[in-house]
Amino acid sequence: MIKVGVVGGTGYTGVELLRLLALHPGVQLEAVTSRGEAGTPVADLFPNLRGHVDLDFSEPDPERLAACELVFFATPNGIAMKMTESLLNAGVKVIDLAADFRLKDPALWEAWYGMPHACPGLLEEAVYGLPEVNRKSIADARLVANPGCYPTAVQLGFMPLLEYEGIDLSCLIADCKSGVSGAGRKAAVGTLLAETSESFKAYGVPGHRHLPEIRQGLETVSGQQVGLTFVPHLTPMIRGIHATLYLQLDDPDLDLQSLFEARYRDEPFVDVLPAGSHPETRSVKGANHCRLAVHRAPASNVVVVLSVIDNLVKGAAGQALQNMNIMFGLDEAAGLRGIALLP
Amino acid sequence: MIKVGVVGGTGYTGVELLRLLALHPGVQLEAVTSRGEAGTPVADLFPNLRGHVDLDFSEPDPERLAACELVFFATPNGIAMKMTESLLNAGVKVIDLAADFRLKDPALWEAWYGMPHACPGLLEEAVYGLPEVNRKSIADARLVANPGCYPTAVQLGFMPLLEYEGIDLSCLIADCKSGVSGAGRKAAVGTLLAETSESFKAYGVPGHRHLPEIRQGLETVSGQQVGLTFVPHLTPMIRGIHATLYLQLDDPDLDLQSLFEARYRDEPFVDVLPAGSHPETRSVKGANHCRLAVHRAPASNVVVVLSVIDNLVKGAAGQALQNMNIMFGLDEAAGLRGIALLP
Amino acid sequence: MIKVGVVGGTGYTGVELLRLLALHPGVQLEAVTSRGEAGTPVADLFPNLRGHVDLDFSEPDPERLAACELVFFATPNGIAMKMTESLLNAGVKVIDLAADFRLKDPALWEAWYGMPHACPGLLEEAVYGLPEVNRKSIADARLVANPGCYPTAVQLGFMPLLEYEGIDLSCLIADCKSGVSGAGRKAAVGTLLAETSESFKAYGVPGHRHLPEIRQGLETVSGQQVGLTFVPHLTPMIRGIHATLYLQLDDPDLDLQSLFEARYRDEPFVDVLPAGSHPETRSVKGANHCRLAVHRAPASNVVVVLSVIDNLVKGAAGQALQNMNIMFGLDEAAGLRGIALLP
Amino acid sequence: MIKVGVVGGTGYTGVELLRLLALHPGVQLEAVTSRGEAGTPVADLFPNLRGHVDLDFSEPDPERLAACELVFFATPNGIAMKMTESLLNAGVKVIDLAADFRLKDPALWEAWYGMPHACPGLLEEAVYGLPEVNRKSIADARLVANPGCYPTAVQLGFMPLLEYEGIDLSCLIADCKSGVSGAGRKAAVGTLLAETSESFKAYGVPGHRHLPEIRQGLETVSGQQVGLTFVPHLTPMIRGIHATLYLQLDDPDLDLQSLFEARYRDEPFVDVLPAGSHPETRSVKGANHCRLAVHRAPASNVVVVLSVIDNLVKGAAGQALQNMNIMFGLDEAAGLRGIALLP
Repeated sequence: MIKVGVVGGTGYTGVELLRLLALHPGVQLEAVTSRGEAGTPVADLFPNLRGHVDLDFSEPDPERLAACELVFFATPNGIAMKMTESLLNAGVKVIDLAADFRLKDPALWEAWYGMPHACPGLLEEAVYGLPEVNRKSIADARLVANPGCYPTAVQLGFMPLLEYEGIDLSCLIADCKSGVSGAGRKAAVGTLLAETSESFKAYGVPGHRHLPEIRQGLETVSGQQVGLTFVPHLTPMIRGIHATLYLQLDDPDLDLQSLFEARYRDEPFVDVLPAGSHPETRSVKGANHCRLAVHRAPASNVVVVLSVIDNLVKGAAGQALQNMNIMFGLDEAAGLRGIALLP
Repeated sequence: MIKVGVVGGTGYTGVELLRLLALHPGVQLEAVTSRGEAGTPVADLFPNLRGHVDLDFSEPDPERLAACELVFFATPNGIAMKMTESLLNAGVKVIDLAADFRLKDPALWEAWYGMPHACPGLLEEAVYGLPEVNRKSIADARLVANPGCYPTAVQLGFMPLLEYEGIDLSCLIADCKSGVSGAGRKAAVGTLLAETSESFKAYGVPGHRHLPEIRQGLETVSGQQVGLTFVPHLTPMIRGIHATLYLQLDDPDLDLQSLFEARYRDEPFVDVLPAGSHPETRSVKGANHCRLAVHRAPASNVVVVLSVIDNLVKGAAGQALQNMNIMFGLDEAAGLRGIALLP
Repeated sequence: MIKVGVVGGTGYTGVELLRLLALHPGVQLEAVTSRGEAGTPVADLFPNLRGHVDLDFSEPDPERLAACELVFFATPNGIAMKMTESLLNAGVKVIDLAADFRLKDPALWEAWYGMPHACPGLLEEAVYGLPEVNRKSIADARLVANPGCYPTAVQLGFMPLLEYEGIDLSCLIADCKSGVSGAGRKAAVGTLLAETSESFKAYGVPGHRHLPEIRQGLETVSGQQVGLTFVPHLTPMIRGIHATLYLQLDDPDLDLQSLFEARYRDEPFVDVLPAGSHPETRSVKGANHCRLAVHRAPASNVVVVLSVIDNLVKGAAGQALQNMNIMFGLDEAAGLRGIALLP
Repeated sequence: MIKVGVVGGTGYTGVELLRLLALHPGVQLEAVTSRGEAGTPVADLFPNLRGHVDLDFSEPDPERLAACELVFFATPNGIAMKMTESLLNAGVKVIDLAADFRLKDPALWEAWYGMPHACPGLLEEAVYGLPEVNRKSIADARLVANPGCYPTAVQLGFMPLLEYEGIDLSCLIADCKSGVSGAGRKAAVGTLLAETSESFKAYGVPGHRHLPEIRQGLETVSGQQVGLTFVPHLTPMIRGIHATLYLQLDDPDLDLQSLFEARYRDEPFVDVLPAGSHPETRSVKGANHCRLAVHRAPASNVVVVLSVIDNLVKGAAGQALQNMNIMFGLDEAAGLRGIALLP
């Protein structure tokens, strides 16, 4: 049994992580920390966990965390980077579900996140935890930067095209739609039901923090500079991301369906749908899958890729568990065999 | 491995049953029938099952079903009663998720369901599958009538009061609210999103088919006639039932919290919340639990019980699996340890 | 043109009041105040008002308000009671959409609202603004206490029965369901979409501030003490209240449909539906109507009344306009002829 | 008072048209037809119209319709084209809210709508009812083809760029999101709440009927061939369309904000938001406005236009009324001054 701690368990990625950890056969949950809720039973805040998680939230005690084999950070940005070094020194592995270790360039990080990076020296070592790209590095990692939700959906959707030589990557468009849980569990007017239900809007068109993360990922895989337009939207539902991806492709003969199927044949959590399909976000609600479909737009040279994930699972907590499984040599799908809830 | 067949797998109780069966460690799914979809891969209709259920829908072939040890009917009312006798004769156990075997009185059944009963002789034998009342009979049953969704929430909520001697049961009120999936997966104007979202309404006040079922259940447990007013409402969500129950209680000293906790202490799927709680339906979304809270209304002799279930799980497919586990001597919670999805 | 000011225009009752005032033919909007948003164009906060309301939010300047003929308070509880006296002294009429003047007994007010009342001397004068009961007093009033949303739906539903002599009022039950906008436009975790969508729950069973208001109203109309159980619920939609009301009636011959139709025949905003109906909240979305249906529960002496309103219109801003129309001798329906949005 | 008939008033565009007509000061509603509901009071089907529309649905009687000055068709595709010629011959003007007269090329119509056109001779005369482009022609028209919902949002969004010389139109992308009411009020599994709530999906990527309509509109305005990729999506809400439009623009100096503001300065129903804005669909819920924002994507030559309408108002019934007003020389905004419902 792996001894696991969770720092910052009061948000949506936190509760989802706890749901998945509670069902994982090889994990012993040692501590769930929260400064604000210390002393409160976890199951009082999240009644779905009644009978499954018996711990109270605790103060983030360094010694208790150092006694774990793995610590997940489900904290706001800027917390993990202050605590990670000492944990690593104590021999504890770390998976950060926030953004602290996602960007390789500390200046870029500072520009987008508005604070200097507390441990830029670890950015090189941190492995970007997208198993479909970095499985081997993840297996050997001490520190994994769990990808953002939009970046996961977008990168998995573009991947087979990025890896295919000769495709022009100067004008990629990622039109993304997210459920409201992506905004987190915090008091805010903007994400009230009365503000976001029965409405749809774009946001962050002038610039969103996931833009540099996606661009870094696409450029790493393709080995070249890419031009990317990324427009996120808020959609009136709780969970789910739908990325609609556009790319101009001059080669009319490339068999896209086969390209995608071949790329993901051995991936346990990427499912390429039959030609002509339109994946629904509900087909992955609560599950760790990314489902993809690839189309050619009619009478056009534009390729359209449709990519859906649950932002809290493959886009956060599920992918973190997948990374844990890889880091500890477990079956990669352990604890992740849940089936999406439909309807 | 128990060989299981599902007749009528294209509705919401069908797909939920398939989700749960696919995750059950002791079940081998032999056939999923549908006249309308015969030949279609199950996972084409329900993409959440891709990779988990590889069968095609098949015609309801009596021989194939007779080769099963257990057949679930997830059909509309009036189908199971035509096929059950021959299955029982072939040594197959049957759990009917529809209403065919729920009422003991065939005349009452005919009055409410608008057709004569096809096998009234089996009504006596059929066991009403509410494990919290009939666990022992279920264990020995060949034929189980799986309770309706409203009846499950209402009966579990009233139960401890019914069993307590001396409470006046002449004016029970059950004000119930259901998600729209309770209306089933069938083409209909009335349950379109554009008709039911952003709206709330009562229905069936002059009479609803679950009224006689609830009354029969309450009277069986209490051993006396009860007066019951039942008003169901449609609430703009997919899953969940919330029953708000009212009963006049003259005894000001009865410790209701203890009464409820004692009654359900050993029940794996009934959770009595701490005094003062208000259960949310999302705390059981996708899970087989019923969560209850009991209150005394301020400055009044009225007891208010709040009871929530997922109509497709404890109110249908999950309870059916629980009954299966009991009938076959398995761990009652096998395949039912999933945690509700929150948020 | 009546010169009107709105104090506290940044909440949901505020924006709805502004929507209605902007369409009213006889109103000149002089000021919309907000300490927090002073200087911001109203239409920046509420883009639906672009082109209709050109004012900026302003500081609540006493002189500017004193120059109005009527001031609406759409503020949190406890604000209006501090500003009303000086406005009245300046000859300004006041309609308070908050609770400051709803209860006649200052001790009761203090007990439920947690602060001493700032001007108990005005409570006697304040007219409870339910036109269907107090139309004549409203016409002469300087100060109107606009009713709460639940109290409006419940009182209109019970009214014809309260006024009918000889009905036992010792055990009334009001099971009420509200959309989330009833909780107001303020940063809070509990009313996030991700917390309240796809879920249903009761709240405030041990006591809700609308309980004494409803009881006071029912007792005033009936002239006797009533026993009332009130359970509010949160339903996953923005607007709408559905009250399901229960009352035991021993007289089997009373023609309830006629009683209700006669009571409301001349009321412009109360609509008694045909016998057997089930009103939907969407039938009043954005409109000032209350729609009612009355049933006898099958095989029982229980009367069930179904009452729906839009909590922001007949439950708040629309009723306030109706009161204004009455106070100023205008057509009672002026500015209130909008039709509910369906779907 | 203009004598008006509505053919096919039982769908969502029908009920919305009736809501708007009932509030229009210059209209006398003569007949609302429906073969299926003939004899039913309109307000029985649509309770929001109680007290506002007193007609019953009637059979589509040619004589009664010929006595009108204007007939709206809110019918499925293929109905209006069979009845229009005789109405025109009787001196009645016609506005078709379906697609029968939108495409100029009858072969193209037949290809997309799967039936031969019944009166190709009228296609030339029919005026495409987008007032922002064809106001003058509409004023003189006997027959107006009311635009589709997606086409309205997309054309208004691209318009200023199409009219500006020298912009490359070879790769336009329109990523559109619609509420479910766009699918109409008809019994169907695919648009049940339980199928579409809490989910998001694209549809029609291989080809959607609005594609040729949009392309025809864009080419007419720009006077050149355009390359267009159109991907519609279903979003879990009732009303609203959000079009996110992408176009590559090499000129870094063009002042897009001014271009848009100048183009729409005199348009009563197109509102260009301040630079940096993100329009929400709820800002036009129930209103006839299109709200637009234009952005340059960061570090890119891509222009992003955000365009929102209410699909049932500016995308259907409201635009039809606007066209009526123009055709009959009324104030263009008559009956269309309603303010969007927010929240």
